Amino acid sequence: MTLYQEDTIVALATANGVGAIGVIRLSGPQAITIANSVFKGKDLTKQVSHTIHFGNVVDGDVILDEVLMSIFVGPRSYTRENVVEISCHGSNYIIESIIKLLIKRGARAAKAGEFTMRAFLNGQLDLSQAEAVADLIAANSKASQQAAMQQLRGGFSNQLAALREQLVNFASLIELELDFSEEDVEFANRDQLRQLVINIENVVSKLIQSFELGNAIKQGVNTVIAGRPNAGKSTLLNALLNEDRAIVSHIAGTTRDTIEEVLNINGINFRLIDTAGIREATDTVEQIGVAKTMEKISQTAILLYVYDALELSVVDLQADIAELVKPGIPAIIVANKTDLLDDVYTLDLPLPKGTDLVQISAKEKQHIDELKQLIYTKTVKGQLSADETLITNIRHLEALQRTQDALIRVLDGIGSQTTSDFLAMDIKQGLHYLGEITGAVSTDDLLDNIFSKFCIGK
Amino acid sequence: MTLYQEDTIVALATANGVGAIGVIRLSGPQAITIANSVFKGKDLTKQVSHTIHFGNVVDGDVILDEVLMSIFVGPRSYTRENVVEISCHGSNYIIESIIKLLIKRGARAAKAGEFTMRAFLNGQLDLSQAEAVADLIAANSKASQQAAMQQLRGGFSNQLAALREQLVNFASLIELELDFSEEDVEFANRDQLRQLVINIENVVSKLIQSFELGNAIKQGVNTVIAGRPNAGKSTLLNALLNEDRAIVSHIAGTTRDTIEEVLNINGINFRLIDTAGIREATDTVEQIGVAKTMEKISQTAILLYVYDALELSVVDLQADIAELVKPGIPAIIVANKTDLLDDVYTLDLPLPKGTDLVQISAKEKQHIDELKQLIYTKTVKGQLSADETLITNIRHLEALQRTQDALIRVLDGIGSQTTSDFLAMDIKQGLHYLGEITGAVSTDDLLDNIFSKFCIGK
Repeated sequence: MTLYQEDTIVALATANGVGAIGVIRLSGPQAITIANSVFKGKDLTKQVSHTIHFGNVVDGDVILDEVLMSIFVGPRSYTRENVVEISCHGSNYIIESIIKLLIKRGARAAKAGEFTMRAFLNGQLDLSQAEAVADLIAANSKASQQAAMQQLRGGFSNQLAALREQLVNFASLIELELDFSEEDVEFANRDQLRQLVINIENVVSKLIQSFELGNAIKQGVNTVIAGRPNAGKSTLLNALLNEDRAIVSHIAGTTRDTIEEVLNINGINFRLIDTAGIREATDTVEQIGVAKTMEKISQTAILLYVYDALELSVVDLQADIAELVKPGIPAIIVANKTDLLDDVYTLDLPLPKGTDLVQISAKEKQHIDELKQLIYTKTVKGQLSADETLITNIRHLEALQRTQDALIRVLDGIGSQTTSDFLAMDIKQGLHYLGEITGAVSTDDLLDNIFSKFCIGK
Repeated sequence: MTLYQEDTIVALATANGVGAIGVIRLSGPQAITIANSVFKGKDLTKQVSHTIHFGNVVDGDVILDEVLMSIFVGPRSYTRENVVEISCHGSNYIIESIIKLLIKRGARAAKAGEFTMRAFLNGQLDLSQAEAVADLIAANSKASQQAAMQQLRGGFSNQLAALREQLVNFASLIELELDFSEEDVEFANRDQLRQLVINIENVVSKLIQSFELGNAIKQGVNTVIAGRPNAGKSTLLNALLNEDRAIVSHIAGTTRDTIEEVLNINGINFRLIDTAGIREATDTVEQIGVAKTMEKISQTAILLYVYDALELSVVDLQADIAELVKPGIPAIIVANKTDLLDDVYTLDLPLPKGTDLVQISAKEKQHIDELKQLIYTKTVKGQLSADETLITNIRHLEALQRTQDALIRVLDGIGSQTTSDFLAMDIKQGLHYLGEITGAVSTDDLLDNIFSKFCIGK
């Protein structure tokens, strides 16, 4: 691993643009002496950690700005190195002038994510915690912020690290067996090993399952609204959004130029996707529209199927449900306009597994709140309790899946009494992928790939 | 004057947008207790000033973020009140959540400039220093930054305040004379008074004169390039800019959609304005172009008149100079293409006062640096020495001009032996306008007007 810690890095840590103040961050062995060399005020090299000092940043006789210098003496800092944060007036000209001056005095412009990378390299954070820092900065809902915060505070990585530790012990016992391979001894108790691997596999499997929700929380939960023309899809969309006008916004779709609406329910962002009415394909252009609807349905996290309870026959309803509701995709059947019926609405139709029926009036905004709560509970499935750990990162998912594959091979090996050398190989692979999550195992490429996605100054 | 200091205000102090960190600022009597009420970490109310504390911002059981709390115990703070700066992760969601929570705990959202207004009301800064804070944030060149910095550090306001103090003494002596008006006494020595008023008027007059340069430095110095078609105006523009490619930028003109080029010479921004060639008005459209050129010339801070030294006759040159060079606007006559002459170029023509001749080759980039230095020195006229005070603010200019008017009336009054009551009135007016600059005299309207132009969080 490259050692970066010889030099002192500098960058603006606050957002670009004009603000009242800007904060410039220095980290590295020379951080305090470089800051001191441009500072007219107290001698910063003689100050204790976590103190703030008022004075001027000077370039020779020229005063660049009046500033506050915050001193963090390593290892009591974000990076565990000496850190100085310079709080200056928030003018781009002044910020650039000060950074240029600090570079002239021996600092180097930091690369994207380099402060956090140093925090990782110096053992302040493990890799998944470092990644949580970026997630936290990008957080845009209560749920995504909470998921990132839990990951930052150790989350699953502490648990994985402890289990990995135990597996390492077994691995070394099995390695020992290899040294004594001619004598046919078993240092590693196979029953205990199997039990440990089963434990780890259980944890890993649960984390893998949590990704679906974790990712949905991070990205927003795709929620397709489908139905026949005039079933009331757009009225429903408006009814869902109207009650939360303040937390509604338009976001541009990542593919195509579709505009989606974002609805926040209990802190989770749902991306409501309106679709072209099905069953209207009288020409080629409309057929394309229906094909697109079907494609969106196949990719959605949850489906709202809306129909006109006054008009649609049970036969047609059954046909729609058979066509649109896919196994594994939770669906809500929304009977619209039931307020216009004289009698109580009943539907004598068996619904597919994982499907609920809700009666609403989109126009009169009746039972919309019930529908929202149902959307929420069907998505979250009780997985959002405070102790529940969610993974939100595709890199973690892939490493966990590879870990799982290796662990299953280990279990197979124990079952079929494979020789120690094959067992050792599979355990090593499991350890490798588990280690990749927390950064116990890492390569320059992996780190560059992770930290280059950070912003400069973090 | 309204007392704002009863409540505690809060705002984001750093620029909007995603950054590694954001800084939320609280100021007021409850700043530390409010911050403490959302903080899980040390007891902030027991910490000494200018210290930094790591911990979590919590809303009940929910952790909103890991933060650093910087404590400033009044009067050792920007506003002289208790101040807490919360350094959190730079996500808009997190920043908004924390500010909302602080408001729920008793803080109030700060208005634009309210922190600096409190610094002024609490005597940390005088009014012209407070205004310098806004100028500093808007600074975009070395010269504008230096002018704002000098103003922030007291600049002319200390000097004015001292002179005003002396004038106040005289004013009270003259008020005393009014009480004894029937006895015809003179408590205020008229010779000493005249001398003081002359001193003040000298200072005021010098400051008024400095506005032209001060304002030019703040806004950028308008520099019109004019000349006949094919004189080499555009080539000259490129030659001036090419050598400083790194510090060249396009800026949109404040009026019309003209694009101007900015050239930084020795830390001052010059706004180079290319014009339509004169003498080409063969039709109405072109006449409009020439009229615009003439209008720009009348408003420029400095004029570069370019001509083709090979082609233009002395008679035509003389006619151009007579038409374009205006009294009071410094001009540089630029003889272009002189490198193509066989002999040394000489020009047998008397130039108007304040006008210089420079020989260049725009195409070959000869003597461009000389021209730049001449543009600089003709603009700055030695007024940019380190001790020299510049005023850059139109509000200060107007107050100084009104002060000057009042002082001249006082001098006239002394000369014509006016009665004490008239003298007292004029002195009072002078004191009033002088006081407006530093804020010794201020109204809510004046303050609102000044601070509403600040950004939120400052």
